[in-house]
Amino acid sequence: MAMILTILHIFGLVTMGFSGLMTTCLITSYWAGDGATSAFSQGVLVTFLAGALLFFPSLRVPKKVSRQTGFLLVAITWSVTPVFCTLPLLYYFPGMSFVDAYFEVTSGLTTTGATVMSGLDQLPMSINLWRHELNWIAGMGIIIFAVAILPILGIGGMQLYIAETPGSVKESDLPPRIAQTAKALWMVYAGISVACILSLKLAGMSWFDAVCHAFAAMSLGGMSTHDQNVGFFNSLPIEIVLTVFQLVAAINFATHFVAIRKLSFKPYAVDMEARSFLALVLGSCVLAASVLWQNGTYADFWTALRHATFNLVTIATDCGFATQDFNQWPIFVPMWMLFLSCLSASSGSTGGGIRMIRTIILLKQARLELFKFIHPQAIRPLKIGEHVINNAIVTSVTGFIFLYFISIVILTFTLLLSGMDFVSALSAVIACFNNAGPGLNQVGPATNYASLTDFQTAVCSFTMLLGRVQIFSIVILFLPEFWKK
Amino acid sequence: MAMILTILHIFGLVTMGFSGLMTTCLITSYWAGDGATSAFSQGVLVTFLAGALLFFPSLRVPKKVSRQTGFLLVAITWSVTPVFCTLPLLYYFPGMSFVDAYFEVTSGLTTTGATVMSGLDQLPMSINLWRHELNWIAGMGIIIFAVAILPILGIGGMQLYIAETPGSVKESDLPPRIAQTAKALWMVYAGISVACILSLKLAGMSWFDAVCHAFAAMSLGGMSTHDQNVGFFNSLPIEIVLTVFQLVAAINFATHFVAIRKLSFKPYAVDMEARSFLALVLGSCVLAASVLWQNGTYADFWTALRHATFNLVTIATDCGFATQDFNQWPIFVPMWMLFLSCLSASSGSTGGGIRMIRTIILLKQARLELFKFIHPQAIRPLKIGEHVINNAIVTSVTGFIFLYFISIVILTFTLLLSGMDFVSALSAVIACFNNAGPGLNQVGPATNYASLTDFQTAVCSFTMLLGRVQIFSIVILFLPEFWKK
Ligand SMILES: [K+]
Ligand SMILES: [K+]
Repeated sequence: MAMILTILHIFGLVTMGFSGLMTTCLITSYWAGDGATSAFSQGVLVTFLAGALLFFPSLRVPKKVSRQTGFLLVAITWSVTPVFCTLPLLYYFPGMSFVDAYFEVTSGLTTTGATVMSGLDQLPMSINLWRHELNWIAGMGIIIFAVAILPILGIGGMQLYIAETPGSVKESDLPPRIAQTAKALWMVYAGISVACILSLKLAGMSWFDAVCHAFAAMSLGGMSTHDQNVGFFNSLPIEIVLTVFQLVAAINFATHFVAIRKLSFKPYAVDMEARSFLALVLGSCVLAASVLWQNGTYADFWTALRHATFNLVTIATDCGFATQDFNQWPIFVPMWMLFLSCLSASSGSTGGGIRMIRTIILLKQARLELFKFIHPQAIRPLKIGEHVINNAIVTSVTGFIFLYFISIVILTFTLLLSGMDFVSALSAVIACFNNAGPGLNQVGPATNYASLTDFQTAVCSFTMLLGRVQIFSIVILFLPEFWKK
Repeated sequence: MAMILTILHIFGLVTMGFSGLMTTCLITSYWAGDGATSAFSQGVLVTFLAGALLFFPSLRVPKKVSRQTGFLLVAITWSVTPVFCTLPLLYYFPGMSFVDAYFEVTSGLTTTGATVMSGLDQLPMSINLWRHELNWIAGMGIIIFAVAILPILGIGGMQLYIAETPGSVKESDLPPRIAQTAKALWMVYAGISVACILSLKLAGMSWFDAVCHAFAAMSLGGMSTHDQNVGFFNSLPIEIVLTVFQLVAAINFATHFVAIRKLSFKPYAVDMEARSFLALVLGSCVLAASVLWQNGTYADFWTALRHATFNLVTIATDCGFATQDFNQWPIFVPMWMLFLSCLSASSGSTGGGIRMIRTIILLKQARLELFKFIHPQAIRPLKIGEHVINNAIVTSVTGFIFLYFISIVILTFTLLLSGMDFVSALSAVIACFNNAGPGLNQVGPATNYASLTDFQTAVCSFTMLLGRVQIFSIVILFLPEFWKK
């Protein structure tokens, strides 16, 4: 009972926070006179009151958060917060179904960036800002969650980072350190976001587009204010700026923090995830460009390289912008892009999927197994750089990856059973699970998720949430052991 | 050097053995007067001479087979034996390319059963017999390899079976026990094969068809003497007989041995693989039938159940017969069939893929990880029945499954790069890797592998071999450590 009150208390605080965020859109709407003022004022009111109603009655509840409470809190916050965030959309579009609105804001809050809405160019400024603010604020939350909270919970091997994070956290001295880490990361994230806004403005965007697309790029959310997405601008400078900032956002923000504090590039060279990520993604750009060029998709290599780079980087980093309908490309390239989206992003970044560190551990483990196979008596530890990775972490990592894989299988078969074709179903699940955004065929970059049935849309919303909380936090709620005393 | 001579010696013996097998087809051809006598006599001659040339000069070589030699021997035997087996085909069809002939016999020897040949109904009896004999003899070899050799090599957790195999093997008392185990298994396999021949004859097949299809069913090879495959007979009794014997063949032959010796069904109830396999496959039949019925693919439930059962069982067991063009079914069903083909067959059976035991270990391990997540301090061992599975085996199993998965990814992308569509490429790789046979679309049950380019055919042949030797025995040859002293 105390547990429930604690959860309601903290969740009430989060909800009030979101009413504050909504207020910025209310102000924008009022200032721009875009007609969404009433929708936002109703939204702010309801959200604030609901938050206050949860928060204040439980003021005297114990604030100590047990492990079990923590997981429940994560699940409830991620799945119920979107309900309040739908309010401005539902008030503004009386015809919009709740399932679609929930999908849209969940897509924002999980930084998936997939959309069921079209006519984005004609939307009220404040509604577009709302979609992009959800991206940005969630990106912030994800980084703090990944760097400060995940290692303590020990999700899928992420305890690895305890020793390497700035303001390294231990369970005993939790609150001050989390706050300290969070503040450092917040400053880095906000600072780079400002740099991104300025660069996009310089590259030719309007201030509003620059803010929205910087929010989408830094959070790797990939929302756009245009139906044609970044293709709308048809601008090489804009593509270059976005590519660079997406690559930055897919690297561990703890590494950025150290690099900025030391004013040195060395932390990147030391960060094995960053190195592997950049090598893999940039190598893949050249490969993809060659395939597109060889197949005559684009007349010359440089055009192929331009389009391959932008679209591959944006999918591989799980951002999910688009400038071309890559669904029409030779199937090797978009499939390779989707494959990269599963494993490229770094832990502690705003990207999703398996994360590069787990991929590296798994590859090293497989290599080690092969070695042990040749020399059964030899003892060789698994090392990442200088660190010896103990067996418990390896087991966590393989456990995570297996859950990841089995989730994709189950969700894909669910969509198949609902009548979707295989490529659409698989790509939708992968794109949503990795929080990347666009898939292929029915959910390709030239279309969106609007054509899905309510059931399929709900499955995709669930998939985005499951991917975002790294599976465990939701799946364990289904275990009987979780609910036992 | 001694190692190379030892390998040549043993390989020479195997080759002479195959010339003996070929002789049975020569006799059949002579007796039937089917026109392939000259092709087989040339084949027997060349194969025997090559075998003798390898075997006799190295008679005085040390017979002790080291671990390294063993792996090399497995790789060479599996990849070079098909070369000799192509001879009758190449002599009989002067226009057949080597790549196609190699695919066809490799498909036979790996019990994949995929074919690049059409006009099977008009082939000389002896040529069809040759294709089916390759299936049957390979099935025999696979069972012995799986039950007697794999546990010693410790491939992917298969040391698990050391304690449970009849004539349980230990490295110290190797030769007598292997021979003893092999003989026991050979008798079980041959005995059940005879029962299958008689049952098929009773169900209405000709003696020749009964022999060929019993060979194909017991080895889970799935070759047929008809282009329409088992659909040619359009006979419910035949389908029932084949379904039963395929289910039998996908269960560990060691379990059959114990059951026969004790004249009891209890060993099946104790065999967790067999129980899980039967529950999963039979449950899936009902599910698939419901989907086909709901979608109106078949007018009534019983017709749907008949076709779903035969085609699902044959793919799930990696046999790969077909009576219907399941490529036309609602995509959920064939995809589910392909998924089952990855994991249903038991270790120690003639099926392929991951094997049920590894699937169970992985599922239990994932469940355990989730439990540890809720109770980080609790210690709970992984158990299969009464046996506690140690960590080294779990690591082997996850290592194997990861190699399995990464192989599928790499091979699928290779086929995509060669221009195949995604469903064809993925299904071809899965069907070949699990040694199941038919895939979907371009390689679906109504067509065959003939439309593939030489490059694609070669990739599929490699895939079949890789799957058959359970990946490790070939992959380790690519490691530098393997070749170091
Ligand atoms: K995204
Ligand atoms: K087969």
